[in-house]
Order: sequence, then structure tokens, then C-alpha cells
Amino acid sequence: MIKTALYPGTFDPITNGHYDIIARALKLFDRVIVAVAESHTKKPMFTLDERVSMAHAAVGGLEHVEVIGFDNLTIDLAREYGADILIRGLRAVSDFEYELQLGYLNHSLDANVETVYLMPSLRNAFVSSSIVRNLLTFNGKTEHLLPAEVEAIIRGMDSCTLS
Amino acid sequence: MIKTALYPGTFDPITNGHYDIIARALKLFDRVIVAVAESHTKKPMFTLDERVSMAHAAVGGLEHVEVIGFDNLTIDLAREYGADILIRGLRAVSDFEYELQLGYLNHSLDANVETVYLMPSLRNAFVSSSIVRNLLTFNGKTEHLLPAEVEAIIRGMDSCTLS
Amino acid sequence: MIKTALYPGTFDPITNGHYDIIARALKLFDRVIVAVAESHTKKPMFTLDERVSMAHAAVGGLEHVEVIGFDNLTIDLAREYGADILIRGLRAVSDFEYELQLGYLNHSLDANVETVYLMPSLRNAFVSSSIVRNLLTFNGKTEHLLPAEVEAIIRGMDSCTLS
Amino acid sequence: MIKTALYPGTFDPITNGHYDIIARALKLFDRVIVAVAESHTKKPMFTLDERVSMAHAAVGGLEHVEVIGFDNLTIDLAREYGADILIRGLRAVSDFEYELQLGYLNHSLDANVETVYLMPSLRNAFVSSSIVRNLLTFNGKTEHLLPAEVEAIIRGMDSCTLS
Amino acid sequence: MIKTALYPGTFDPITNGHYDIIARALKLFDRVIVAVAESHTKKPMFTLDERVSMAHAAVGGLEHVEVIGFDNLTIDLAREYGADILIRGLRAVSDFEYELQLGYLNHSLDANVETVYLMPSLRNAFVSSSIVRNLLTFNGKTEHLLPAEVEAIIRGMDSCTLS
Amino acid sequence: MIKTALYPGTFDPITNGHYDIIARALKLFDRVIVAVAESHTKKPMFTLDERVSMAHAAVGGLEHVEVIGFDNLTIDLAREYGADILIRGLRAVSDFEYELQLGYLNHSLDANVETVYLMPSLRNAFVSSSIVRNLLTFNGKTEHLLPAEVEAIIRGMDSCTLS
Repeated sequence: MIKTALYPGTFDPITNGHYDIIARALKLFDRVIVAVAESHTKKPMFTLDERVSMAHAAVGGLEHVEVIGFDNLTIDLAREYGADILIRGLRAVSDFEYELQLGYLNHSLDANVETVYLMPSLRNAFVSSSIVRNLLTFNGKTEHLLPAEVEAIIRGMDSCTLS
Repeated sequence: MIKTALYPGTFDPITNGHYDIIARALKLFDRVIVAVAESHTKKPMFTLDERVSMAHAAVGGLEHVEVIGFDNLTIDLAREYGADILIRGLRAVSDFEYELQLGYLNHSLDANVETVYLMPSLRNAFVSSSIVRNLLTFNGKTEHLLPAEVEAIIRGMDSCTLS
Repeated sequence: MIKTALYPGTFDPITNGHYDIIARALKLFDRVIVAVAESHTKKPMFTLDERVSMAHAAVGGLEHVEVIGFDNLTIDLAREYGADILIRGLRAVSDFEYELQLGYLNHSLDANVETVYLMPSLRNAFVSSSIVRNLLTFNGKTEHLLPAEVEAIIRGMDSCTLS
Repeated sequence: MIKTALYPGTFDPITNGHYDIIARALKLFDRVIVAVAESHTKKPMFTLDERVSMAHAAVGGLEHVEVIGFDNLTIDLAREYGADILIRGLRAVSDFEYELQLGYLNHSLDANVETVYLMPSLRNAFVSSSIVRNLLTFNGKTEHLLPAEVEAIIRGMDSCTLS
Repeated sequence: MIKTALYPGTFDPITNGHYDIIARALKLFDRVIVAVAESHTKKPMFTLDERVSMAHAAVGGLEHVEVIGFDNLTIDLAREYGADILIRGLRAVSDFEYELQLGYLNHSLDANVETVYLMPSLRNAFVSSSIVRNLLTFNGKTEHLLPAEVEAIIRGMDSCTLS
Repeated sequence: MIKTALYPGTFDPITNGHYDIIARALKLFDRVIVAVAESHTKKPMFTLDERVSMAHAAVGGLEHVEVIGFDNLTIDLAREYGADILIRGLRAVSDFEYELQLGYLNHSLDANVETVYLMPSLRNAFVSSSIVRNLLTFNGKTEHLLPAEVEAIIRGMDSCTLS
């Protein structure tokens, strides 16, 4: 049976840390769906379309990966796509506690969906979208934090977008 | 390709929390090896033979699971058994930090072995071998914390073992 | 002497986790006041009136419990109501640190008011108002997280409220 | 009904931090039993008798407090003494996680016993028995960390005891 | 060679905790620059000008301290002012994780700038700008949390500012 | 005035992580004393002499660094050597809490000694002496975790030492 894993997040924008997790998930499962959440409450820096485009560009070279946008419950999305595995990256203790809470919640909503936690490589351990957004606001260097395709897209945008 | 996952630990003794993780790993991978460490420095309550026997008894009803004892580096054991996945249970923040450190170490020793973190069900979230050992020392109730087969083995032992 | 305990919070909305803490506090103290904060800065999903009404409905069956709304300092409210005990629920490490800071602050403002920390039952350990609000936004199942009376009130509201 | 609270620990030795918690518990409950555990596995610096004596000396001036030694499960001791409240001090995040686990365990053994967590005053936030033992080993100053009666007892002991 | 340390933050407003860190930094390094960030995303309670003025007033009595406002990357500011040391205060575990991430980021941007972490005195361990702002909103006592000069400035402001 | 910093620890054995901290401290202060504690209670793998020798070998190439062994209180040692700065490495949350407690203790013993916390480079973030000792026990690769001089000394020892 084919194992489909769903990797949900805001990806605002997708970073080397996210890419790292996707590459690891691909070694474990047959198919990985990168699911970009609308995330109204987080007021993302980039639109859903932009975030989906950047994720597409980042994973362009990988087989068995799809990118979708969504605006509903993760667990409903997993059912819709026949995914019985959720992928979550763990980086810090504060991530961990929130993920623990979310994992128990999702299990309470659908006990058939299993959450699998992966850690990025050490060199990506400090990379986060919020750190990247802060650097972009002040025109700081981000090329060591972002996939080259994503860096290119962002640097090509009108600078007004990034403030 | 068959995916073999190694689940290393001291299992002193194997608990419902461990069983929970094994059952979850089986839904994700083709073959799970429960690897019971000698753990000289931890001075276990039960001998390696006893711990292996209890683990065998606990997983007796599950297909595609093996139990072995070992006394070398986890990463060397993984190579020996053709396992490129390590399974670790995460329960608390303090677990998490140690696991993070261990994960980076193992990655530094062999980048081909991927560590996958799973969380036990909420009802097993507080179960640990050390809590069980403490209860056994004072003859407290453990039947809600241990697989029935393990409970039976322990209750059948000479009480001198448990002090 | 009658012991009055004040249980302050935003209760946006009151959950099974909160109810759990209230029931525990009642076993320890003579009178429990559930104090619903206006919380301008948190921009609650429900109005203060709605949150007070839901809390009333939730604790309707319990003796020695009162529900009030407030918009001042907790420590001033405690004095006003003759409460020399504050109740706080602890669920996660991140809760804990914030509570520690708040406890020291309140002690610096009035050393006669004692803060008592209680933990909810394991089955409510992952329940939080923010998780409930997220489920409500996407029409997810919440009946296992909310007191029945609260679930009924929310499901009877105009759906526009919940977005 | 009289509310009896049990405050279990190793008290090796009893510190200002412990005294602080006892004084707070007395403001909340009618009777407080300080229960000094034998703690074979921790290999205490002081014998059970010495630790009980020091605790007695420390709380000598307080009404409604008793001191006992014990060598069984806390929850069994609580039943024996008619205590349906356990007192635990919280100081640091690492304390907290362990206490959470222990609280869930005790609840699983007897749902009628409620655990109440208290925090010491800020000035005692860093005081622990292990820090005191380390200072004693090297003849460091401990008078700001220990009740005067305990300081006197320890300074009167044969120095061989403290190494 | 003169050692210049930069202490960046939002200082909304500067507290006794910040002052404590500045005084410690002065004992270690030759010159300390208190750098007040514009912090658009945090929507501060006080304007940048007000925050700079309060910081000036607070450190008025200290030699070798300067106060500046800024609205760019910390690491760029450090280069601009010839500072190869960043000062950060650590108070709680949650601070720590964020600081760890930030430290690694800054090191990735400029490996010559060293981050030094200091802890405030125990009596200031619970003091934070957000706790002060909450007290100000409800007219609570803050004089034990703020430098006298800052307390005076705030109490002299039109109360509309503080809501 | 010359600034002398004391860097105390068990160094069992000294690792790349320790070396990293020493190199950073040297950029900040004029003189760094690496102080190797006897640490009876920790039962080190290597004798104090061996640990001092390895530390000497590791820092051989660095000016303004001394290595000493000690068996008393850190704060007494600092006074003895005229060091009013203590250096501590921070790596993980669990380190941090312990260090916080120790920092407050040392401040309570001598308010003139300031503790400065430094973080190792990301690539050394997972390196610890206990991980190295575990690898040595099972003959695992340690050359990426230890200074070359230390690796050479250990590999030259009779293998009986390492079990």
C-alpha cells in the first residue's frame, strides 16, 4: 500500500529547514503533499498564491512531492487526500509543546492519522520563517536560509511587498 | 524496498507506553526491531535476559516485530540489521532535548540513518519505566501501566528481585 | 474562616479543561469565583457578555461557584471579593513559566494572596481555548472539548460570529 | 471537615525553600504532615532519623504541622493519614515536568487525592537540598539557605558526616 | 583595545531588569550602547522617542553608556558602531530558546560579533516590560519595577497614552 | 585593569564544545583560567590528572589561558585567583535552568563575581562529554567531537581505562 504523508504549514516563506524536512520525509514515505495553509489569523507576509508558488519552485526538482493550498482543518485535508500520516518538524522545545498538544488534538479527531516528527539538520536548526521575514524587512542576507529558487523569486518582487 | 525500523531502549521493563510506540511504528514501516540495550551505566532493575523475555512476551501477538538484546552503539546495530530508520518515543520536554542531542550525534555518525519521533497516546503520556520500577519496589498497582504478559511475568518473580 | 478562591482567565470560551480545574478547586476551598477578564489586548472571539454567559451555563450545576466579568487587575479584584487565594491551571511548560512570572508579580503586589496551581485530568491536558477557537473557525468537532451547555450555546449562534 | 495536606519529600536536608512551602500550605489547609521519605535509591547525605530530626527542629514553632518518616508509596501514606491533598513545590521547569508525570500517576492510583502545587518566594527560588549538600561538602556558607535550627544541627555534627 | 557592547531591545519601557543588565555589562566592558528598536511589528505602547527618552533618563547617572534609537538589523547596527559584542538578558527558558536561535542567526550573518548572555538579579527575575505595560493599563503599582526616573516620566504623561 | 575569567567544569574529557567556549572567552577577556573540578560525586571516567593533562594539551596553542585542577567551591577558587568573572557554556534548556540556579547561588555567596554565559557554535551544539564517554565505551568515532590532541591522548591510553 502506498504511504502518503501530508506536511502542513504556513510556509511564509518556505525555508531550507522546510526543504530539509521534505527531503527526509521522502526517504520514509512514498508520496509527500506539502500543504500551505491560508492562515488568516497569522496575517502572513506573502499571499497564499505567492507561498504556494515559492513552495512549488523549491520542490521542483523532487519526485513524488505535490504542493497544495488549503483553508480548512488539517485532519479534514488529510482524509480528503488519503493521507494517514502527518509530518511535523521539531526544532525547539517551544515547538515541541505546541506540537504535542496538536498531536493529541488530531488523534482525538481521527485516531487513524499518525503524526511523525522529524528534526532538520543541525545547520538548519535555527532557520525559521519568522527570522527570514525579519531579515527581508531590513534587507538582510537570506541566501543561506532559503532555497535558491525562493531567494530568486523574493528578490524579484517589488520591494513594497516586503515591509 | 522493505523499510526496517530499529527501536532501541533499556526497556526496564517494557511498558504500555513502549508497546504503544511499537504499534504505531508498525503502521508506518514494514519491520520493527525492538533492541534492548545492556545499559551497564544505568544499572537496570532487571537483567538483559529478563528484559528481552518481557519484551518478547509483550509483542508476541504482533507480526513483523523482532526483539534483540545488544551491547554496542545504536548506530552500529542499525547498520548490522539493515535498518535505516531509528524510532524514538517523545513524551516530555526533557526527553525531547536529550533526543535532539542524540539525533544530531547519530546523524554525525551516519547521515543515512533517519530518526523518526513518535508520541504515545495521551493515556500513556505519563507512563515510564522508572515510575513502574518505583511502584514495583513498594508493591504498588502497575497493571494499568504494563502489558498483561509483562505484569504476569513480574508478579511471578521472586520478590527479592524487586528491591 | 471561609476560604474564597478566585479563578481568573479569559475563558474564550470556557472548556472542559477549565471546568476540571473549577471542580478540583471546589474540593479544596469553600467558594470559587470564576472571573472572566475583558482582555482587550487578546481580542477575544466572544464578547465579555457571551463568555460570562457560557461560563454561567457551564458551572450551573455546581454549588458555591460564582461567575463575574472584570476589567481591572486580578489582585485588585481578589481584594474586592475577599479572596486570598488565586487558582491557576497548569498544563504545559510554557504555561508554567508565564505563571511563575505572574505569581511573583502578584506576590510583589500583595503578599497576602496565595496562588495555588492545579493540573487538569490527563484527558483534558491538551484542551485549550485557542484549539477550540481554531476548530470552531473550520467547523471541526468540539463536543469532546466543551461542556455540553457551552457546545449548545455556540452551535446556536449565528455562524458569522465564528470567523 | 478538616483538610489534611501531606507534603512528601526527601528533605536532605530541609531548606528555607521547604519551610516556605510549609508556611504557605498552612494558610490554605488545616493540618500539614511533612513526610520524610527513606529514598534508598537517592542515597541521601543524612540518615532518615537525622532528616526527620532536622525537619522537626525547623517546623518546631508552627502549629498544626507534624513530621513523619516513611518508606512506602506516597499515595498509600496519604490514605493511611486521611490526607486527600498532596503538596508539591514548583521551582523550575524541570521540576514541573516530573511533577506533572507524578501527578498523573498518583491520580491514576487514587482519583480522590488532589495534588496542589505551590511556589516558594522569589528569594528562595534557587534554594535546593542538592545545592546545600554541595556547599556543606566544601564548607561553604549555608546560613541564608537553611532554617537557623537546621544550620545549628548540621554545624554541630561531626564533620566526617559531610563528605 | 576598547570593548564596545551593544544592548539591543524594544525597551517598552526600560525596567529595573534592563537597568540591572546594563550595570552588569558595564563591569565587563568599556562602553555600552543601549539600542532602542523601532519594532513596528510589536506595536509598542510608547513611541520610539518616548522609549529613547526614558532609557536616557534611566541611565543618566552611568558613565560610558549611550542610548540610541534604531530601525535596521541589529548586526548592521553593531558594525556601524564598532561593537563586536551583543548583550542579551536571560530570564526564563522561553527567552533562552529564542535567544539561542537569534544567536545562531547573528553568528551566521557576522561571525566576528560575539553574543554574551547575562542574568538579572533574582529580585528582578520576574520583571518584564509586558508585565509593566499591563500594570500601567490598570493603574497598578509599578514603582518597584521601574527606575525612579522612568516612573516619574510615565506618571507625568497624559493618561490617554496608557490604554 | 586586567579582566580574568574562570571557566570551571569537570572536562571529562574536554571537547570541541569546551574549546569553542574558551576561544570565545579569550576574545572578550584578558586571561582565561580553565578550572578542572575533582567532582567526586560525578565519578568521572578520567582521573583529575588525566583531565588536566588533556585540557592542557587542548589549549596548548592559545595564549593567556591557564589550566588548573581544583577541589573546593568555585566561588572560593575565583577569589583565590582574582577572577571576578565566571564563564559558563549554554547549550540546552536543561543546562540553562541549572545554570540559572547556580548563578543565583554564586551571586548570593559573592555579589562581586559576575557570571557570563556563552553559546558554542552551532556545529558543536550537540557535543557533550557524556556523549563522548558513551562513544568511547563502545569504540565509536569521536574525532569530530574532540580536539586532535585529546583524541590522540585517549587513543593512546590502555583500553582498560575506557570501560
